Amino acid sequence: MTSSDFLLRELSDEGVLRLTLNDVKRRNALSEAMLGALGTAFEEAGKDPAVRVIILAANGPAFCAGHDLKEMTAGREGDDGGEAYFAKIMTMCSVVMQGIVNCPKPVIAEVTGIATAAGCQLIASCDLAIAAESAQFSTPGVHIGLFCSTPMVALSRNVVNKHAMEMLLNGDMISAARAAEIGLVNRALAKDALQEATGEVARKIASKSSMTLATGKRAFYAQREMPLAEAYDYASQVMVENMLARDAEEGIGAFIEKRQPQWQDA
Amino acid sequence: MTSSDFLLRELSDEGVLRLTLNDVKRRNALSEAMLGALGTAFEEAGKDPAVRVIILAANGPAFCAGHDLKEMTAGREGDDGGEAYFAKIMTMCSVVMQGIVNCPKPVIAEVTGIATAAGCQLIASCDLAIAAESAQFSTPGVHIGLFCSTPMVALSRNVVNKHAMEMLLNGDMISAARAAEIGLVNRALAKDALQEATGEVARKIASKSSMTLATGKRAFYAQREMPLAEAYDYASQVMVENMLARDAEEGIGAFIEKRQPQWQDA
Amino acid sequence: MTSSDFLLRELSDEGVLRLTLNDVKRRNALSEAMLGALGTAFEEAGKDPAVRVIILAANGPAFCAGHDLKEMTAGREGDDGGEAYFAKIMTMCSVVMQGIVNCPKPVIAEVTGIATAAGCQLIASCDLAIAAESAQFSTPGVHIGLFCSTPMVALSRNVVNKHAMEMLLNGDMISAARAAEIGLVNRALAKDALQEATGEVARKIASKSSMTLATGKRAFYAQREMPLAEAYDYASQVMVENMLARDAEEGIGAFIEKRQPQWQDA
Repeated sequence: MTSSDFLLRELSDEGVLRLTLNDVKRRNALSEAMLGALGTAFEEAGKDPAVRVIILAANGPAFCAGHDLKEMTAGREGDDGGEAYFAKIMTMCSVVMQGIVNCPKPVIAEVTGIATAAGCQLIASCDLAIAAESAQFSTPGVHIGLFCSTPMVALSRNVVNKHAMEMLLNGDMISAARAAEIGLVNRALAKDALQEATGEVARKIASKSSMTLATGKRAFYAQREMPLAEAYDYASQVMVENMLARDAEEGIGAFIEKRQPQWQDA
Repeated sequence: MTSSDFLLRELSDEGVLRLTLNDVKRRNALSEAMLGALGTAFEEAGKDPAVRVIILAANGPAFCAGHDLKEMTAGREGDDGGEAYFAKIMTMCSVVMQGIVNCPKPVIAEVTGIATAAGCQLIASCDLAIAAESAQFSTPGVHIGLFCSTPMVALSRNVVNKHAMEMLLNGDMISAARAAEIGLVNRALAKDALQEATGEVARKIASKSSMTLATGKRAFYAQREMPLAEAYDYASQVMVENMLARDAEEGIGAFIEKRQPQWQDA
Repeated sequence: MTSSDFLLRELSDEGVLRLTLNDVKRRNALSEAMLGALGTAFEEAGKDPAVRVIILAANGPAFCAGHDLKEMTAGREGDDGGEAYFAKIMTMCSVVMQGIVNCPKPVIAEVTGIATAAGCQLIASCDLAIAAESAQFSTPGVHIGLFCSTPMVALSRNVVNKHAMEMLLNGDMISAARAAEIGLVNRALAKDALQEATGEVARKIASKSSMTLATGKRAFYAQREMPLAEAYDYASQVMVENMLARDAEEGIGAFIEKRQPQWQDA
């Protein structure tokens, strides 16, 4: 099986790239192969001008089951009890998750099934997430003696402390409705309306200037980690550069003249 | 039109300063003149002992439409394509927003109408916000090629990431009810009950010790940016100084003796 | 009255330590004696392998009324007007609150009654909190001229800014339902179902590996204060160490073999 079988790609005319996790038998676990495929896909999509927005979806009843525990266990065979192997996998996984955050294209998770551990982290790492009402979420590492310490990096940057700790300490599934309530996903809706809904959001975002989206997404996560005064200095500079760019001049001109803007890269 | 026409001021006997954005024709846009008037108003109110709490309201169907795009566009005329002018405006705007956060008096936004872009930022920058059910909020910069990068500094310090990104990436209006749900405003209520409600909150806060409010507001935003241990060291010191101040001695004494406190500055 | 009368301890066979605030007459105020008892209890519980999880409960109509204002006022008698005494009390209190955060055992607040000021802080400092519908919460320092500056350190790390500021500026009680809505507590339920509910959550958590819980809890609060890239580097290292620990090997093995895990310390 090649990486393209694990992760299906479909690019629409409007610039919506649909990436579909497709290792159904292993519940779309983040095996080395899957991590590799995801990492490459987001890196390539980030550079490809034909891609304006990305939907991350999954085939099968599980959106993603997290790390591949059988592969991890096989890694214990090394002389070091697996230390170097585990470090390699954790680094790969963290690079993929940050690759989503740092990807210049907006990423929307479309969650139909069960998302657990690093699978839940994957959703928390996306810019937006829309879930089927039947979807479920958990960080169940405590059940197997392995706290979901990397998933919680993304989780705790999405939901407030007590909500995150509840998921982490008891390991239970939460419903899509609860996930929407606490901010882990943007909203939950009927399963058969989901794909149309994410498509609609994606097409709307794809109709915007890619330069503007990339500028804004990068600035969002950068300023979020700064103290207020520093964040304002930084964001003000971003605004000035954005104002000087061709697409802002065109966009503002079109707005004043009440016509549709024509983006440079559209 | 002088700055006092743009921004109406009314100070009640209880120390409630009502600032009303009044450039209805331009949808209360943050023109240079409006930014100047706001900056001056918050600076003066901060120093004026007669002002105990501030309500920021607006006349007309728009609470505030954000930057004045025609004025910004005119700024492009310069030899540098507007760079120096945009930098000046962004700095002015960021100073005004931080002036609200740093103002020693609590600031309550009273939102009747539509608040967009930097208008939404204005509300996010206030300590409290109460909205009419008919109010609406958006950060629509993506529509015109200019991401709402400075508005998001305030927005992302009020609502969790996915809620902020949804507003920023699709640029759509959200209702007052949704704004209350995600924490952008404290609550939404019937339009004809709004002014009475903000007045009631303002008068309650105005009845407290101004020294105590100033101490607490400053400490709130300062400690929020510190790691936990540092925040506790800092806040403990603030508590000690607050305990030693006359109004705490009076307030605690009054509480123990079951009488009304008499604040120093009341 | 010895410290054991102020703070009742009951340890179940499953490793659930129930600490009950029991200074009913003083509304479980955080007197020097109570702070001392709490500090010792969490420190000892952290080291005691028989304790796997902690419930913090209270007898009487008040969960905890915050600092003991009569004791604080008596502290003014010193030559320095109380400065050294206040600094001592604030430091003691901050050490107790951070002792809960840093305790390697998960701590669950069970809130039946009214929690005010540092009493509200106590709940915000716990990892989880479940409240009776009749419970109420406030940070009412503004009423007595003493802003709740140390309580807000914990409060503002649990709820978003406008919700925190509303409680701090008006000092009013909020209901348990509202506290659940804003994330100050995990949920609110009928008073006569509360103790059973917290017991159930506690027993579930107590059935997990204590090593895993301690690793995860420490990492949670540590990574929360780091920028994203640093948080991932740190959490990845924590995951590698956790993988190499005996309980993760056992837990993952049991999961793959579909049997119950046997934790090292159980």
